Order: sequence, then structure tokens, then C-alpha cells
Amino acid sequence: MVRKLQVAVSGLGRMGARHALHFLDRTPRAELVAACDPDPKALAWAKQRLEPFGVKIYNDFDEMLKHEGLEAVVVAGITTEHAPQSIRAIAADKHVLCEKPLSTSLEICEGVLKAARQKPQLTVMCGFSRRFDASYRDAANRVESGDIGRVSIIRSQTCDKHRNDDYFVQYAKFSGGIFVDANIHDIDLALWYFGQDSVLKSVTALGINARLADLKKYGDVDNGIGVVEFWGGKIAYFYSSRMMAAGQTDTTEIIGTHGKIVVNGNPQKNLVEMHEATGIHRDVPQTYYDRFEQAFVTESNEFTECILDGKKPPFQLSGAISALKIGDALQKSLRTGKKIDFNEIGEEIVEEKARL
Amino acid sequence: MVRKLQVAVSGLGRMGARHALHFLDRTPRAELVAACDPDPKALAWAKQRLEPFGVKIYNDFDEMLKHEGLEAVVVAGITTEHAPQSIRAIAADKHVLCEKPLSTSLEICEGVLKAARQKPQLTVMCGFSRRFDASYRDAANRVESGDIGRVSIIRSQTCDKHRNDDYFVQYAKFSGGIFVDANIHDIDLALWYFGQDSVLKSVTALGINARLADLKKYGDVDNGIGVVEFWGGKIAYFYSSRMMAAGQTDTTEIIGTHGKIVVNGNPQKNLVEMHEATGIHRDVPQTYYDRFEQAFVTESNEFTECILDGKKPPFQLSGAISALKIGDALQKSLRTGKKIDFNEIGEEIVEEKARL
Amino acid sequence: MVRKLQVAVSGLGRMGARHALHFLDRTPRAELVAACDPDPKALAWAKQRLEPFGVKIYNDFDEMLKHEGLEAVVVAGITTEHAPQSIRAIAADKHVLCEKPLSTSLEICEGVLKAARQKPQLTVMCGFSRRFDASYRDAANRVESGDIGRVSIIRSQTCDKHRNDDYFVQYAKFSGGIFVDANIHDIDLALWYFGQDSVLKSVTALGINARLADLKKYGDVDNGIGVVEFWGGKIAYFYSSRMMAAGQTDTTEIIGTHGKIVVNGNPQKNLVEMHEATGIHRDVPQTYYDRFEQAFVTESNEFTECILDGKKPPFQLSGAISALKIGDALQKSLRTGKKIDFNEIGEEIVEEKARL
Amino acid sequence: MVRKLQVAVSGLGRMGARHALHFLDRTPRAELVAACDPDPKALAWAKQRLEPFGVKIYNDFDEMLKHEGLEAVVVAGITTEHAPQSIRAIAADKHVLCEKPLSTSLEICEGVLKAARQKPQLTVMCGFSRRFDASYRDAANRVESGDIGRVSIIRSQTCDKHRNDDYFVQYAKFSGGIFVDANIHDIDLALWYFGQDSVLKSVTALGINARLADLKKYGDVDNGIGVVEFWGGKIAYFYSSRMMAAGQTDTTEIIGTHGKIVVNGNPQKNLVEMHEATGIHRDVPQTYYDRFEQAFVTESNEFTECILDGKKPPFQLSGAISALKIGDALQKSLRTGKKIDFNEIGEEIVEEKARL
Repeated sequence: MVRKLQVAVSGLGRMGARHALHFLDRTPRAELVAACDPDPKALAWAKQRLEPFGVKIYNDFDEMLKHEGLEAVVVAGITTEHAPQSIRAIAADKHVLCEKPLSTSLEICEGVLKAARQKPQLTVMCGFSRRFDASYRDAANRVESGDIGRVSIIRSQTCDKHRNDDYFVQYAKFSGGIFVDANIHDIDLALWYFGQDSVLKSVTALGINARLADLKKYGDVDNGIGVVEFWGGKIAYFYSSRMMAAGQTDTTEIIGTHGKIVVNGNPQKNLVEMHEATGIHRDVPQTYYDRFEQAFVTESNEFTECILDGKKPPFQLSGAISALKIGDALQKSLRTGKKIDFNEIGEEIVEEKARL
Repeated sequence: MVRKLQVAVSGLGRMGARHALHFLDRTPRAELVAACDPDPKALAWAKQRLEPFGVKIYNDFDEMLKHEGLEAVVVAGITTEHAPQSIRAIAADKHVLCEKPLSTSLEICEGVLKAARQKPQLTVMCGFSRRFDASYRDAANRVESGDIGRVSIIRSQTCDKHRNDDYFVQYAKFSGGIFVDANIHDIDLALWYFGQDSVLKSVTALGINARLADLKKYGDVDNGIGVVEFWGGKIAYFYSSRMMAAGQTDTTEIIGTHGKIVVNGNPQKNLVEMHEATGIHRDVPQTYYDRFEQAFVTESNEFTECILDGKKPPFQLSGAISALKIGDALQKSLRTGKKIDFNEIGEEIVEEKARL
Repeated sequence: MVRKLQVAVSGLGRMGARHALHFLDRTPRAELVAACDPDPKALAWAKQRLEPFGVKIYNDFDEMLKHEGLEAVVVAGITTEHAPQSIRAIAADKHVLCEKPLSTSLEICEGVLKAARQKPQLTVMCGFSRRFDASYRDAANRVESGDIGRVSIIRSQTCDKHRNDDYFVQYAKFSGGIFVDANIHDIDLALWYFGQDSVLKSVTALGINARLADLKKYGDVDNGIGVVEFWGGKIAYFYSSRMMAAGQTDTTEIIGTHGKIVVNGNPQKNLVEMHEATGIHRDVPQTYYDRFEQAFVTESNEFTECILDGKKPPFQLSGAISALKIGDALQKSLRTGKKIDFNEIGEEIVEEKARL
Repeated sequence: MVRKLQVAVSGLGRMGARHALHFLDRTPRAELVAACDPDPKALAWAKQRLEPFGVKIYNDFDEMLKHEGLEAVVVAGITTEHAPQSIRAIAADKHVLCEKPLSTSLEICEGVLKAARQKPQLTVMCGFSRRFDASYRDAANRVESGDIGRVSIIRSQTCDKHRNDDYFVQYAKFSGGIFVDANIHDIDLALWYFGQDSVLKSVTALGINARLADLKKYGDVDNGIGVVEFWGGKIAYFYSSRMMAAGQTDTTEIIGTHGKIVVNGNPQKNLVEMHEATGIHRDVPQTYYDRFEQAFVTESNEFTECILDGKKPPFQLSGAISALKIGDALQKSLRTGKKIDFNEIGEEIVEEKARL
């Protein structure tokens, strides 16, 4: 019989549960063998939905790590556990797929990177779902082919549908802020299309609280604008929002010297259009998962494939840290109201005044 | 000073009034010198809106024909007067732009054609507005260029917005039926893109009364499907409707052996899209004039140019008759429930049974 | 452990191989236990791709039927075997998912239906993939909700991309003709949206050979137009083609008294648009499978679910026969050049002349 | 006879000639009575194209101002003459429609404003063409209606098609820079939709020279990103480019707390789409005039109407100065590499260091 990757999922909240099901049902070369969560509600769900398929359920991560034959772990619990669990899993010689962000702290991220570098035989990936989306990949191939010339400007946005509850406010407590949480995807895209080695030149961020005044308590905004300049004539500009009326509208434009690629310029839920007395109408994906479900499934399959076939992951773990560094700088710019400049090796230029 | 064409408009109903204003305000090389209508209400409008600009107002067509210096007449009154007025205008050596249809009777149409042929120095045009529309002309140029190979299939529809009043029912009294009134435009397009010399092979028409049962009184339907086959491997299929919810949706597909041209596949009123809680929404032109206003203005300008510069019109008057012949055959097919076949010179094949 | 449906696939050609993989990899509640094909090339593929996963490979259908524990069979081999194998599988008390068409012969189809009716405990489905497509289902829900009023007109097309090889010609030998092979999907949609109990009133079909003259040898055309009228004021009109330049363009419009639903009015491969010196450009799915892959996967999952959970299939087997009856009538109309009429109980009206 | 406004046009370069023809041919209530240009080539054109229609041709602006009966002047010559000629025309009691920009100098602009304020009976307008575009007006009405809640974020871009000649480089000598020349339209839109009285809080601008290195000689860039913050929680972000491959792509998004309006999200030349072997394709307007021709015609008509009917212009002259002030600040930010902050009454905050 064919060997299947033995996988466990840690954290069975909204995204964790989805990861568990992706590995259980939609990743043919993997076998979900274990899952854990300290929360009784999550455990109850797992007993009902996973256990009957032979998945062993744990309430403790470190116990689960000892599961016999376990080869890989998906770390998908609360953000503050992402890095610690990843590091322990690496230490236990498990491959790791960690939900983004590794951490909202650069230093902690670098700890994960360091751990991973000590075990080069392990696949350690951070889950940037758009990297697995067919349209973003098509765009990458077109960039690669040179069809649009040298990529010079990138516009990208991550815009969530407005929610009537206080979800975004609760979430802001630990999300690290809108640039680190939402625009991190756009930053990662910019690094993908501009090149991972792009050197930061400046960042500027602004934001407002148009609907969610309570976000201010956590220093967060509900609409953010960020401009990120790289040395060598490359500028990315970002928009993030928590108040879209229609739904999830994540759009990206990649503008080269000889052409432009637009990804998701016309958001749509499916291929249906309604002609009604009020005009022509179409629905829009409501959530990030509605838009990127298939990308998450591709992610679980390619993570599996990398390990089983000894392939290199489609992107480096260090990229997650580059993206976070930029997200962090944007958060700082938002906080201080200042543009932040960087020298030609990407070090922040501290103003004289401050240095005195 | 530059010479301007001296034009009069006969009939100041909805379309006639528009023609008058197009010649008054939007046809720089023409001068509207006269207008007539027997209806007091129309006359009152003309007194107020046209007379102050030096337009002489008549209540009698033949009186108007004698207007000194008059060179051209737009015939835009009731359908039954189209042919008689056109013929008298031609007899009086006036150029003629006649609203469609020349007549719903083929015989009468041929009378106009005969009159026009006796005065080859005159420009006599029938107003097929789509012939002047920028998008349809772009399509014609692309067909001409050979980009889509040999045109083989045409799909075309003329679909009006539903009205809550009895307009369409009243209109059916004299319109000649939905194929002759609405699809006549699509038939004309088919002749344009297939070639005016296409020889009819068969017609089939079906229809229903989905919302306007009263149309039945006049033998008319509110939704019609027509299929028109030409010798040499060319088929056009048509749809017409009086019950569109969103607005005027006239779409055409020209399918060649090597490509397809779509005209107005995505109806839109303007360049605005709304993102709302219910999704993404856009408005649609509400009426035929909303969609084709600019084409009507181009029509008045080109009619003028043909006369002043001695140019040939963009299409032949005889084409209007070819289109009506097909429309008539579709109406007959609708009425009889039979497919009608034609021989290789386009003569109807009468079944043996009937001939006995 | 959870029970999984034990499934076998018969026929490992292009679609059969896909079905096998869908059940192997993308149908969590099913287990592919066997597969068969008489062709050595297909067997070699199966040995390499399926056997390592515990799938038993057979070269004989009847041998496979005896596979221990087998519960369900997917019949996906050559068309002429669809019905015989389905009937034998039913006789052996297996659930059956049969690729369309059951047969190109109505009589044979009815044989399958009869067999199925004798075993009401079995799930016997015919694979109309669009029934499982998210957009067509969304349309069905909207029809159901009454948002567009009474469905009155349906336009639907199945248009394949042109191929430079002789695939379509070879295929025509046994396909039954373009209306039975391609438009059968559109006919099925019409029955879905109009109601399965719609009574046929008339059919008319026309066709041409615009690029594939060799199809004539088999009485087939490369572009077909069909009009199907049902009693009670319902008309569907269809287009099928084998010569689309851009790709697979299957579009459907469902026109009700109070609104219109468009499915796939704007074909697109993914969410990417290119802005180039020649304008704005997007790619189109190249094949039927490109467009409907996910629908096929849903099909395998729902077939499984129906059996395991004792649910009713989303549509009746008899619907496949209703669709074929209409497709057959269209083929006859194409062949004879006649419109065919049916009385109010859907029986063909034979003309006096012919009866004498 | 009806009174027509007596208009003259100064400057018969590309846009001036268009203005002249708009008033000659497409502004029914105006009469073009004079035109002037010092350039012999422009004069030759005017003699041939305008004089035959009774337009008196001058080579001197001040001579033209004395033209008997002249009521209004369109100032459309070189930018440096916009303000001086406008001021002299106002002094001579003529209504003025001045092409944008009034001047690239704020001080000079204010001189025009002062002159205009001394003659409140005169209509003095600056030509912001988008203010007359049907789609932008539709957007304004929707904003006004409250449908999208409080406008919070505006994204707007002015992107020209790449040219192979040195037009943009030559043009940069006197254009004032990309933010003052191109994004000035977007700034004006932001003021329109946010409210003319919005108080500037900060500006940040960045730019690159991706294709036109020679622009650097004049301190200009070929791609610019600007972020403009207003007090009260409003942010506009802009993009301008001179290197679009496909054509003119001016897009605007107006994002409110409860909805979003997109203007020109899908640029298109007309209603034609091509299905070709390479996919689906559409053309894009090539120039600013291609996109806004009808808006310019509306402008000439409404300017005329304001004067003849004593109406207020659709926007204030002072708005042009507010826009320029912001454009100027963006240019300064680009030049210095600094974010510029403004206090709550819109005065630039000069850093301590600088003040010492």
C-alpha cells in the first residue's frame, strides 16, 4: 500500500477545524491521525466529527506530539501559541505547517526560523493561503514570463465584510493590527511579485475608524492605507478594511513597465447574474474562506507533497518574516504618524533628533 | 458662409420630436427649417421648442413640402404614413430619411423603392439605427477584416423593458407584430454581417404571451423566437421580448469559423457599479433610445453628409425590404405554426397539398 | 470506524479515469475498491495509478461485479455499454451512477429505467453534471424562490472549443448527434427549470457544417440550433457548437415573467485579467471538464451520500429519458428538415399524408 | 430668434481646437464668433475649419477680446497664459471657461480668483472635465442620497497609455508634475465626494521613473502614489501613471461606511468583446479625450447655460485652488521625501528644526 503522511492538527477553532477536515477528507496522500485542543467545545466537536474516522483526540499539544508515527503538525490554534508549538514540533522532528502569523513579534518569528534552520530536513511552512490560489499563481507565472515587463507598482487590498457583532474588536486584542493581520497577505504578494530580496526603502501608514470606534482601544483602525517603497524603483500600496458592504473583496494589481495583471478585479460568488427590476446584480464571497477555500486545500496537499516527495516548498519561511517586518513597520508608522525611511541595506534610518 | 442642408421633419411624436431636435441641435451641417404634424399637441410643442429657432411649423405635410429651399425630409409620423409621405417627398425631389418600417406591407415598401429608383440623384434612407451604432460598426469592421473567419451563426435579440401600462398592446395594433417591429433590427444585422445578398432558405417562428395576454387580440406575442436559415450554411436565431425586468437588453453574437464577436453582452447604463449589502449592482439602459441615442445622432449627421458630399449611404434602401421580407415570413410562421421553406432563389416552397 | 461506500468504476477512458480518481481521492465517504476496463492501455494506467491504493483491477465487468462487498458501480465506458452494464449491475443489486447518455436509443434507456424501478432500494443516477454545479444550483434556488416569476423562456448553449484533430468526427460515429450529445445538457436544464413534467409541444432543429464537413458522413453538424416548445407557454432555444475559438462557453439564460437569471454569461478561466498593448484579455476554460470539474466531484460525493444516508437523488432517472426523448426529436427534425408537433399529452402528431 | 451666447476660444492647440469645435458644432445655445492663436499653424487650421462658418480668426488675444458682442471666452492655450488671459478677459467683462490648471502656481491662481470675485456677475469656471461626466455625476448623486453612508475612503487614479515618443517628457517641462497635472482630477473628485470644505491633515507622495528616465530632468516621475488625509477621518489615495499598456484607465472608488461606488472599474472602448483563440478580449479608450469627450461637450453646454440662464456653475472656482493646493503639497512631499502634516485649520506644520 502507498505510504500516507501522518498528520496532526493543533487547534480546532474556526480555521483549525477547517485544516483538520482538509487533511481528513481532501488531502489524499495524507492521513489525519491526531488532533488537539484544550477547549472542551472544540474537543466535543472533534470527538463527533474526527474520532469516528480513526483520528486520536488530545487535549494537550505535547502529548499529541508523542503520537506514534506522527510526521507532521498543523499549528492552527491561538496566535500566541503559533511560535511555541512550532518550535516544539520542530524539536520533536515534525514537519510544520503553521497558520499565519508565526507571531506578531519579529523576534519570536526569528526564533522559529532559527529552529527550522537547524533541521533543514524538515518542511516548515507558514500558511500564506494566496500563494496556493490558482489566480495568484497564474499571475506569478505571467510575471515570470516577462509579459508585463519589470514589475514596478503593486496595488493590493484585503477587505473584509462588515460584521454587526464585535468580532473585529475582540480580534484586535491579539491580531497585531490591521496591517499585520490583513495586509500581511498583500505584503507577501508584493514580495512574491517584486522578488523576495526586495530591500525596504520606506513605509507610510494611515488609518481611520469609520465604523468601529472601539478598535481604537487596541490601537487598531477599521480602514488602513499603507505605502511601501523598495529600493530600485518599486512601490506597493495597500488598502485594508473591515467594513465592506458587499463581501470579501481582495483585489490585486501588478503593474509592470509593459502591462498590468489584475487579480479579482470583479469579485463574484459564482457564475450567476440576476437581471431584476433594480438592474443587474451578482453576489460576492462573504468571507476570506469563501474566497480562498480551494487555496487552503491546495496548501494541505502541497505541504504533504513536499514532505513525501522531498520537494522544496513553494516559498521560504524567511519570507513570512520579511512580510512581518514590513507589517510591523507599517503599524509603527500608523502609531507614530511618521513616514519611516530605511537605508540601502534595509535598516531603519533613525532621525538625528532622536539619536541625540 | 458654408452651405447647410435645409431639412424638415414630418411627425413630431416621440421619435419625430427627437429627430427634430437632433437636426436642430446636433447636426452641424444641417438646418432644421420646417416641421409638421396634424396633432395640436405636437404643434404646440413645436411652437414652443422649435419655432423660436426659426423653424417654420406646418400642420400639413404637403404644404410643408413646398417650403422654399427645402432639400430633405425626415418622415417620422405614424407608420401608415411612412410610405405615402416618402413617395410624395421623392416626387417633390426631396431627399428622404424615413423611420423604420417603411411599411409593414412588402408591396407598399416596394412602391417606395421604385419611387426612389426613379430619382437616383436623391438620398433615400430607412432608419435602421444600429447601422450607426459605434459598437455594431466596430463589429462590422472586424467581420470585414476576416478576424473571425466566415460568419456562420448569428444570435441577436431585441428585448424591451416591461411596462406597467398598455403601451405595447396599443402599439401592437399597427406594429405588424414583434418580428416585424422588434426583431427587424436583428434581421437587418444578420443581413449586414452575413451579406445583403444572402438567400433565405427557411424561417421558423414561435411565440408566447407570458405577461401581455391582450396582445393576442392583435395576433401578437410578448416573447418571440425566430430561426432564419440562409442558403450556404448560415443560420441566424433571434429572440424578442417585451418583458425584461432590468431594462433594454439588445445583445448580438456574430459567430465565425474562427472567432466570435459579442455586442453588448453586458448591458450597462454607465460606468458605475454599486457595492451594497446585497452584492454588486449596476443599472441598465431603460429604453431603446437610452441605448441608441448616439446612433440616432450619427444617423442624422451621416444622412446630411451623404447629401452634401454626394456620398453613398452606408446601406441600401433595398436592404430594408429584404429585412421586412424575412420579418413577414417569421410572422407568417408564427401565425401558421409552420416552418416555411424557400428554394435556392429564395422563393417560398408551397407544399403540394396546398397547391392541389 | 465509519462505514465507507465500496465503489467500483467500469471504463477507464478519459472520463472513467477521472471518475475513478474522484472516488479515490475526493470522495471521503467512499472507498474505491475496484476498477475495470478491457483495454490494456487503460489497465496499465490503473495498475500504476490505482492498484497501489488497494484498488483491485479487473479486465472484465462481470468479474468485477462479483467483487466482495461491492456496493456501487460507476458505469463510464463506451456509450454502447452504458445500458447493458447498468442493467447487469442493477441485477446484481449494485447502486449505479451511469455516465450520460444511458443510451442514444430511447428503447434501451427505458430498459434501464424498468430495471431500476424493480429495485427501488437502489440509487440509480445518470450523470448530468450541471445538476451538481454550484451556479446552476444557485439558479435553481432562485427559480424556486419565485424571484423571477414564472419561467417562460430558456436559452442555453453547449459550445466546445474547436480542435484541430478529427476527435469530433470520430466521436460522431457513436455520439448520437450534436443535440443528443451536447444539447442534452441544455434540454435537461430546461426540464429542471421549467419543471420535469413539462409536456412537449414542438421541436425544430437546424444545423450546418461550418468547419467539420466530415461530420456529414455521420449525419452530424458542427453547429446546431434547436427550438423546443412546451405546452403552457414555455419555449427553450438551444445552440451547440464544436468550433468555439476561445474555449468552452456554456451559457444559460432563464427568463421569467419578472426577471432573468444568467449562468456563465462571462466565461473565464480564473480571476485574472491581463492589460496588454492589445487591450484587456482573459482566458476561458478549454474543455467541458475545465468548466465542470467541481461539479463532477460533487456528483460522486452526493451519489455516495444518497446511498449511505438513504436520501433521494437530486433528480430522477426518468428525467434522463425525458431529455433524450427531446434530443431524439431534435435529431429527427434536423434529419427531416421538418418542425415536429406534439399533442397535449406529448405524442407526436403524424401528418395525414404520412399516415395514408 | 433665440439669443445665442457669443463665444471665443483662445488657443487652438489640441484641446483648444476641440473646445472650438464643441462650441461650433455641439453647443446649440452658443455661437462661436471668434478664435485666436499666435501660432501660424493653428491659424491656418482655423482659417480652413472655423472661418467658413463665420468665425473671426485673430492672432492676438487682446484684439479678440474687443470683438463686438463677445460675451464669453474659453482660455485653452499654453498653461502659462491661462491665468493672465483669464484675468484680462474678466477685466473686459467676459465670462471665462479656463482649461485646467488655472496655473501651477497657487499665488497666480489666487489672482484669478480675486479677479473673478470682483465681478460676481460673471461666470468663471475651471475645466475639470470629470465634473461633467455622466458616471461621476451618477456617483455624486448616489453619495448625496446617502446610499453608501459617510464617505470615508477614496481611491482614484489617472493613468495614461504609454507613448513611444517623448511627449510626456516635453510636457513635463511645464506641467507642474504628475500630481498637479494628472492626479489633480482625482484630488478634485476627492473634494467633490468628501465635501469641498474638507480640511487637509497630511499628504505623502512617492514616485518612480519606471520607463521615462528623462522625466527626472524636470523632477517628474512616470508613476506616482499619493496619500491625502483630511481631518475628520477621511483618506484619499491616488495613483497616476504614464505607462499603461492597454490605454487610458481612470478608475475611482468611493468607499462609505455602508457601501462602495466604483466608477470605471472595467475600462472599455465600446460594447464589443472578441472571442479569439487567445481568449476573450476588449479594447480600451486610448486617450483622456477618448474617455471624456462627452464630458467636454457637456461642459461647453453647461457653461453656456449658466450664463444664459443665470445659473450657478456646478462647482466653485475656489475648488480648483483647493485642489491645486493639495497637488502642490503632494509635489513637495515627492520632492522632499517627507510626509507633510497640517493643523486643524489646514496650515502646514513646520517642524521645530526648520523654524529655528
